[in-house]
Amino acid sequence: MLPIDDSPIVRDGKSLILAMDHGLEHGPVDFEEVPEKLDPSTVFETATHDAVTAMAVQKGIAEGYYPSYEDDVNLLAKLNGTSNMWMGEPDSAVNWSVDYAAEVGADAIGFTVYSGSNHEVEMFEEFRDVQEKAREYDLPVVMWSYPRGQGLKNDTKPGTISYATRIGLELGADIAKVKYPGDPEAMAHACKAAGDMNVVMSGGSKTSDYDFLSTVEAAVDAGAKGLAVGRNVWQREDPTRILDALEKVIYEEESAEAALESVSDEDEEPTDAAVEAAE
Amino acid sequence: MLPIDDSPIVRDGKSLILAMDHGLEHGPVDFEEVPEKLDPSTVFETATHDAVTAMAVQKGIAEGYYPSYEDDVNLLAKLNGTSNMWMGEPDSAVNWSVDYAAEVGADAIGFTVYSGSNHEVEMFEEFRDVQEKAREYDLPVVMWSYPRGQGLKNDTKPGTISYATRIGLELGADIAKVKYPGDPEAMAHACKAAGDMNVVMSGGSKTSDYDFLSTVEAAVDAGAKGLAVGRNVWQREDPTRILDALEKVIYEEESAEAALESVSDEDEEPTDAAVEAAE
Amino acid sequence: MLPIDDSPIVRDGKSLILAMDHGLEHGPVDFEEVPEKLDPSTVFETATHDAVTAMAVQKGIAEGYYPSYEDDVNLLAKLNGTSNMWMGEPDSAVNWSVDYAAEVGADAIGFTVYSGSNHEVEMFEEFRDVQEKAREYDLPVVMWSYPRGQGLKNDTKPGTISYATRIGLELGADIAKVKYPGDPEAMAHACKAAGDMNVVMSGGSKTSDYDFLSTVEAAVDAGAKGLAVGRNVWQREDPTRILDALEKVIYEEESAEAALESVSDEDEEPTDAAVEAAE
Amino acid sequence: MLPIDDSPIVRDGKSLILAMDHGLEHGPVDFEEVPEKLDPSTVFETATHDAVTAMAVQKGIAEGYYPSYEDDVNLLAKLNGTSNMWMGEPDSAVNWSVDYAAEVGADAIGFTVYSGSNHEVEMFEEFRDVQEKAREYDLPVVMWSYPRGQGLKNDTKPGTISYATRIGLELGADIAKVKYPGDPEAMAHACKAAGDMNVVMSGGSKTSDYDFLSTVEAAVDAGAKGLAVGRNVWQREDPTRILDALEKVIYEEESAEAALESVSDEDEEPTDAAVEAAE
Amino acid sequence: MLPIDDSPIVRDGKSLILAMDHGLEHGPVDFEEVPEKLDPSTVFETATHDAVTAMAVQKGIAEGYYPSYEDDVNLLAKLNGTSNMWMGEPDSAVNWSVDYAAEVGADAIGFTVYSGSNHEVEMFEEFRDVQEKAREYDLPVVMWSYPRGQGLKNDTKPGTISYATRIGLELGADIAKVKYPGDPEAMAHACKAAGDMNVVMSGGSKTSDYDFLSTVEAAVDAGAKGLAVGRNVWQREDPTRILDALEKVIYEEESAEAALESVSDEDEEPTDAAVEAAE
Repeated sequence: MLPIDDSPIVRDGKSLILAMDHGLEHGPVDFEEVPEKLDPSTVFETATHDAVTAMAVQKGIAEGYYPSYEDDVNLLAKLNGTSNMWMGEPDSAVNWSVDYAAEVGADAIGFTVYSGSNHEVEMFEEFRDVQEKAREYDLPVVMWSYPRGQGLKNDTKPGTISYATRIGLELGADIAKVKYPGDPEAMAHACKAAGDMNVVMSGGSKTSDYDFLSTVEAAVDAGAKGLAVGRNVWQREDPTRILDALEKVIYEEESAEAALESVSDEDEEPTDAAVEAAE
Repeated sequence: MLPIDDSPIVRDGKSLILAMDHGLEHGPVDFEEVPEKLDPSTVFETATHDAVTAMAVQKGIAEGYYPSYEDDVNLLAKLNGTSNMWMGEPDSAVNWSVDYAAEVGADAIGFTVYSGSNHEVEMFEEFRDVQEKAREYDLPVVMWSYPRGQGLKNDTKPGTISYATRIGLELGADIAKVKYPGDPEAMAHACKAAGDMNVVMSGGSKTSDYDFLSTVEAAVDAGAKGLAVGRNVWQREDPTRILDALEKVIYEEESAEAALESVSDEDEEPTDAAVEAAE
Repeated sequence: MLPIDDSPIVRDGKSLILAMDHGLEHGPVDFEEVPEKLDPSTVFETATHDAVTAMAVQKGIAEGYYPSYEDDVNLLAKLNGTSNMWMGEPDSAVNWSVDYAAEVGADAIGFTVYSGSNHEVEMFEEFRDVQEKAREYDLPVVMWSYPRGQGLKNDTKPGTISYATRIGLELGADIAKVKYPGDPEAMAHACKAAGDMNVVMSGGSKTSDYDFLSTVEAAVDAGAKGLAVGRNVWQREDPTRILDALEKVIYEEESAEAALESVSDEDEEPTDAAVEAAE
Repeated sequence: MLPIDDSPIVRDGKSLILAMDHGLEHGPVDFEEVPEKLDPSTVFETATHDAVTAMAVQKGIAEGYYPSYEDDVNLLAKLNGTSNMWMGEPDSAVNWSVDYAAEVGADAIGFTVYSGSNHEVEMFEEFRDVQEKAREYDLPVVMWSYPRGQGLKNDTKPGTISYATRIGLELGADIAKVKYPGDPEAMAHACKAAGDMNVVMSGGSKTSDYDFLSTVEAAVDAGAKGLAVGRNVWQREDPTRILDALEKVIYEEESAEAALESVSDEDEEPTDAAVEAAE
Repeated sequence: MLPIDDSPIVRDGKSLILAMDHGLEHGPVDFEEVPEKLDPSTVFETATHDAVTAMAVQKGIAEGYYPSYEDDVNLLAKLNGTSNMWMGEPDSAVNWSVDYAAEVGADAIGFTVYSGSNHEVEMFEEFRDVQEKAREYDLPVVMWSYPRGQGLKNDTKPGTISYATRIGLELGADIAKVKYPGDPEAMAHACKAAGDMNVVMSGGSKTSDYDFLSTVEAAVDAGAKGLAVGRNVWQREDPTRILDALEKVIYEEESAEAALESVSDEDEEPTDAAVEAAE
């Protein structure tokens, strides 16, 4: 962990990473209801939103599309990834070297680590090489810290998420991206376990505007320094609207309710029931 | 993915790759009915046809025969391959380094990836090394993208082919070679999943002129940027005639029927039944 | 083994290494009763105590916190480590290169070796690379020598501990850190098996002041050249007080009883029963 | 495959390779009836015969004995080999680097490939490294092409031998050494499958003069460009006599019968029965 | 194999290697009856005897103790070794690089190879790297050639020992250290199978003076070029006395009986029974 507040992928101490490596990790099935998003340009357009501090993609997408967006988008080079046809213990192929990521114009490096997998030792060592090479280029390193595999029944229980953030700190990540552990106290503990290292919440699968924003609000209140999100933004009909709201929740620390109201001149307000449930 | 329209292996935005690595992948048994084709010169002769934008062979064939054809044929160096005596999960040995392929005169690189195999992670990483090294030589990279292995019951179903093209895009291929998924809509989706990356259809085992050409026509209509073909050309008695027809279907976007007619002064017309069935 | 008496991590021929890699090896659960210690600064503060000759941490902690303490603390770069979610035979990922450890300012290198594990051969060879690279930087090497794995029923029996120190000597460690084998004669034999190489006792899980100090006293009497301790220091409410006592036991070779008395103006004296039991 | 007719290991387009790596592959048991041949000098003496274009040995034999024969014998450095105590799937350790083989004075490189073994992929890749390095030194490469392992019931059936020669051609060997497939048509097909690459027959275990020579005659008639032989030469009482005969059969394309006659002033003629059986 | 008669580890064509890597291979248990020998200085003292041409130790022992003996002792750097807690198929970790061994002052290299183990291929290849690197430093290479593992019921039967020496010759060792195969004829065959390469007998576990010396005598008579011995020297009360006797048996080719007599002014003569049994 090095100080990264001056990095382009951080704004006011926080980050909003828009991720689109789902074509590799999940396959085109993730685009079924938004087929136009199979064209990566559409998501790069979305990433030009001021709220987004970096866009995370695999090498081929970066090579093909980033040249048109390098003035408006910060590139987070997601170095590893595997298809969901992989049947072995959780693992992730290293598809991109740091050297070439730097050449393509990366502003930061992203790397998945599956602690608890039978490939943990191998992945830690791959992370070592990547992290130390990234230091030579002064590129911050974001660890997708996802305990998973043989020994793990439940990968979102509080102790697991705190362990995940701590592993990020111990191994030298600058930001750890973890799943939301279900409640704010657990998230607070996970942030505390990370010491001075930034923790960002992982966006997960698409939910309603209010559920999504209020989880982000809770995470930020608990100490999270932002969000790494994919489907909850680009699977939406109007990604700009949710980014407007996220900008308020994350950087201005507004409530989910207030943020939604401010963007809801046009459409969709939180139902009373949802608001009550959240209070 | 980088822009490759100016590459020698592309003509008017499309490619016709003549492949002859069957001696390694399948063994001499593929030459049983055309034993004279065991002599690679005969297939290099065929590859001098204007319709052919590149010939794909393994290292030893290139070393021995390409020097006589380098003025008339573009060389696609097929870097990996395995015999069909291999009993393990799908895998492919890397038989040729990019450095040496460039020295032998390669105009492009070909590499097989078996996503879904228990060797997926290893093959992705081999592909990384090859792709990044090919960038240093400005050589386009064609991925033979063939999901196969433990987790796959059916390797030509639409979702699998779309995943295959997407993996090509995400990992940095410039062209993905995939099997025809059975119908034009599925092919169209597979091409869309590839974003701006070119997709070429794999020729498969030998069929009748009409069946073959009308599948190519359908693929091109659906967005495929050409064909990579072996047996359907060089297992034929008259490879030139089928290449004449393919030239019309692929580059001039004529129908299979029209293309066949134009080359059928001499012999073999589509049967009425076949034409009807295709309408 | 090279002479290390002039090394900064040795004081009067002995060492007291404060270790805090528990966040990686055991997870945040080790901090449950002292949650403030999740902040590595608190332990670095403790390490400024004159009795501490080095602080052992993983790479990320060193990167983030050591710059503030480099004038007051000697850094022992613990190069390998694994989470306790790992379900395989004992193994430890190499998370830090010697080159980068030197760059971060390491005064010594720490490395775990699990002899008897099915990864023994691999770990010995990793140790070779690390040890020989450390020689280039004139950095002493501390082996965490912990026989463990398939073939070991009891990893603290005397023969095992003597084997552990001998392996340190044979493979080229400068200090071996081993568990206390249960009685002074066994510890004396383990020290003798190490030849001229220093042996330090491993602190283990937290016990009472008296039990802890009298074990250290026994180990030092038996020939141990100090202690590597974590939880028995930083899990205590008053780490400074126990370090005051350890300073007397280790460097001044006072008895545990005398050392405790000298620091007990304020609180907690050994119970009569405990003192009797130890006589 | 590169043109090798000008290579020292080829005479009039053919090769006779005398191999003596049996001490490694089979053990001293192969020398039981000719114990004096345990001394490699005796076989190097034999290799000075004009018919022999190269002698194939492992590194240690070359280091120790080749300096005395380098003016009279061409050295074929057999790079890999394994003892017959090996119980795993067919594999072969790479015991000699090309760089060092060149330094010792090699005129050519020999390498075993067990296609069909569970080590096929690994062996193909080892062959790649060796073949490409050999190109840097302009050293021809002879592949011992021996399909063997899990998937192979019968390693001398015609299809297997044709596949073996083809693999040699595809992977870049200059000569493939294969077992005799049992009949001339099968051998002819195997030679045809090799394109312009030379095929040499493997000598196999010791048989009678006539049986051996008539098999060589048949192989050469079928297109084989010579022989790689060990036991059928040096296990004989009079290796020179059989080499005299081989010289006639291979380079002068005499019949086995005629060759035997011309060397049989002294002893052992083909029995009538054997001659009849062969007609 | 290269000529090594001029090497410092050879005296009059023979070698007496004193080995002390038992602390690693067997553990401190080997020192139970001679605990003072846990101090490596004591064995280095013994190695200053004129009969000893080299002392074989692991890296750590060499680093720590050889500097005091480099004028009086030749160092044989034993590069690999494993603890006896290892439960896998026979294997041996490479604990020392040739480069660093040369830096520490090695006069020769020692390396164990377990032919027949499931690690045979890997160990052969490690031996290759070591042997070829040793050539760069002009360091002779001694192979501890010990067939062992899955396929071997009896590792001292004659055929196995002959195979062991032959493997040393074929792979490029300069000396092979093997177990005594039980009778002089078998030893003679093993020496013959080694060609011009030197064979030394392995000392084995401690036996009586007469039994030990008469086995050495038999081995030398059979062609062995000396002895590599550990326990039979340093486990003795008076190592100098047995070395005096070994000097006569090995270099002066005296009988065991005569050698013992000449050193027995003080103590312990062969019993009549033992002498008779040996006649």
